[in-house]
Amino acid sequence: MSDQPAPRPGPTNSIADVAGIHVGHYSRVGDGWLTGTTVLRMPADGAVAGVDVRGGGPGTRETDLLDPRNLVERVHAITLSGGSAFGLAAADGVMTALYDDGIGFPMGRPGEVVPIVPGAVIFDLGRGGQFAARPDASFGQAAYAAAKVDPAPGTPAVPQGVVGAGTGARAGGLKGGVGTASTVLPNGTVVAALVVVNAVGSCVDPRTGELYAVRFGFPGEFPELPAVDPDRLAAAKDAAAAEPTPLKPTLATTIGVIATTATLTKAQCAKVAGIGHDGFARGIRPVHTMFDGDTLFTVATGERGADGIPDPFAFHALLDAAGDTVTRAIGHAMLAATTVSTPAGTMRSYLDALHTPAQ
Amino acid sequence: MSDQPAPRPGPTNSIADVAGIHVGHYSRVGDGWLTGTTVLRMPADGAVAGVDVRGGGPGTRETDLLDPRNLVERVHAITLSGGSAFGLAAADGVMTALYDDGIGFPMGRPGEVVPIVPGAVIFDLGRGGQFAARPDASFGQAAYAAAKVDPAPGTPAVPQGVVGAGTGARAGGLKGGVGTASTVLPNGTVVAALVVVNAVGSCVDPRTGELYAVRFGFPGEFPELPAVDPDRLAAAKDAAAAEPTPLKPTLATTIGVIATTATLTKAQCAKVAGIGHDGFARGIRPVHTMFDGDTLFTVATGERGADGIPDPFAFHALLDAAGDTVTRAIGHAMLAATTVSTPAGTMRSYLDALHTPAQ
Repeated sequence: MSDQPAPRPGPTNSIADVAGIHVGHYSRVGDGWLTGTTVLRMPADGAVAGVDVRGGGPGTRETDLLDPRNLVERVHAITLSGGSAFGLAAADGVMTALYDDGIGFPMGRPGEVVPIVPGAVIFDLGRGGQFAARPDASFGQAAYAAAKVDPAPGTPAVPQGVVGAGTGARAGGLKGGVGTASTVLPNGTVVAALVVVNAVGSCVDPRTGELYAVRFGFPGEFPELPAVDPDRLAAAKDAAAAEPTPLKPTLATTIGVIATTATLTKAQCAKVAGIGHDGFARGIRPVHTMFDGDTLFTVATGERGADGIPDPFAFHALLDAAGDTVTRAIGHAMLAATTVSTPAGTMRSYLDALHTPAQ
Repeated sequence: MSDQPAPRPGPTNSIADVAGIHVGHYSRVGDGWLTGTTVLRMPADGAVAGVDVRGGGPGTRETDLLDPRNLVERVHAITLSGGSAFGLAAADGVMTALYDDGIGFPMGRPGEVVPIVPGAVIFDLGRGGQFAARPDASFGQAAYAAAKVDPAPGTPAVPQGVVGAGTGARAGGLKGGVGTASTVLPNGTVVAALVVVNAVGSCVDPRTGELYAVRFGFPGEFPELPAVDPDRLAAAKDAAAAEPTPLKPTLATTIGVIATTATLTKAQCAKVAGIGHDGFARGIRPVHTMFDGDTLFTVATGERGADGIPDPFAFHALLDAAGDTVTRAIGHAMLAATTVSTPAGTMRSYLDALHTPAQ
């Protein structure tokens, strides 16, 4: 029943509030395409990382390396991509770009490095009209290049919605996408999340039409939307059920990254990722089904060094905040998503389906 | 956004709706005691079982045996107990009682059996006043004996609240306890849960005073409680914070068993247990922390044999229902709990703290 009034969102309420984490998106839309790739670039010396895979149909790479028993501690980027398992190729482009920048696990002489780039994918094949229109290594290169450019003044630190790996995303019959959020703990530790919401389940409470996530927002974080008209809620459910791909399970997958300024071990990162999945559970229902490949990475930049090593109670506060931060990022994704029409059909946004005045 | 109107609670809305599962409680209260043990007796030929441990401080036995790679498929009972790791001794008594009944994994001649009894414990030491007043093998024997007796007419199929392993339970500063719920799927499969709620986190939404779980109930399943008075909600939070063991993390742990009539493999049982933890996440916040030992078992009786083997879509429906059934059981636990006073202090029930008219 703790309120914990002290935590608050960071300045950008995005994963960019963790210093050294830079997000780049590359999207391709039209002519059969509706997909993209998102790259999270780490500080040049990498970030300690862990992972927890809870979905029944995951598509991942370099996750075994993240086992706490294994050698490599730090990753240099994380790639999230559309394209189902084909989209794992996007990380190839991120690796070559990092290599060209001289960034990676040192193997010998200067420049002899192997970049460590874990990744996960969502299923979005065919949503733009062409099943074969999927990300390849060039998507990873382009997203990595975007992650090296500072956002233009007046633009969001991290674009959300129908962008990057969320371009083709869909959740519970509505348009999904990218969302992000951050929390600053009373001790100054930042924990933030970026998610790509693409779920079998829904982010919407079927009884009220409210996004589950808004209940976990900070005061004023989410817009005060009017109550959803019951007829409209029923109509949205009927419309979703009547679509060519109705609310029957198809391969879906919500993926994401939690980032923190804390100094954590690989195993602690994996624990943070695990409790981040509770944030999925509160924002999406159901989730972690056999048709979802739900995967969460956690990266710890450790910017405060030994001062950032949490004691058990500080780690508890971090875990608690991580779950809610993930849930809030899910809410942001659904609110930032916009309606998309392609030859494969129309995916309506949450706002258009349930809130925007009819035209 | 699927409503899935067809599922409904079973006749007793308890884990007893899975034929062949019998629950027995043994509780000891007073003279320094406030603890107990709950045994779930399986059909005599056992039930296929799996487990998922998601808490950071678990206390378990026979969980490695449940790894899908390992030999034994079926368990004969599951023991849930207070007493922290000491309480694992309760399963010794269950084993000897099963052995005396000739039930177990066959090792040779008739009667040469080894009963398979996985178990998990909650931390409740000292809550009755005496740290050393903890369950032993006799508690397991007594609970097993209780599980062999049919409930008296007019009494609940499965007693809930301050009973058995939930006797000393506590959650978010309020009295915890045992809760149970069941769901009958449209195809006739029953999925049910029994939980012992003893969490670091809270089952109560701090903004409204509502139990998180009631949002996931079937129509009419939970009582329509009036809105919680804000002053009273604030007072309850203050009172909890002022207690000798305030809302700082202490070793806690929510444990439970999901049971189904479906025919599942060990690995499928583990997957069901995994998604059951999403039910924890929706009913308790936070959960799965380093101070919780959250553990869920799943048992499948397979009463319909090959007819009960789910196809992927039927398994999806089972997983979806399993999560919500666990959440509902958490709600029942909190509503069934009653205020308890011992030399160690008073644990108020949810209803007394937030709803019962002041005396």
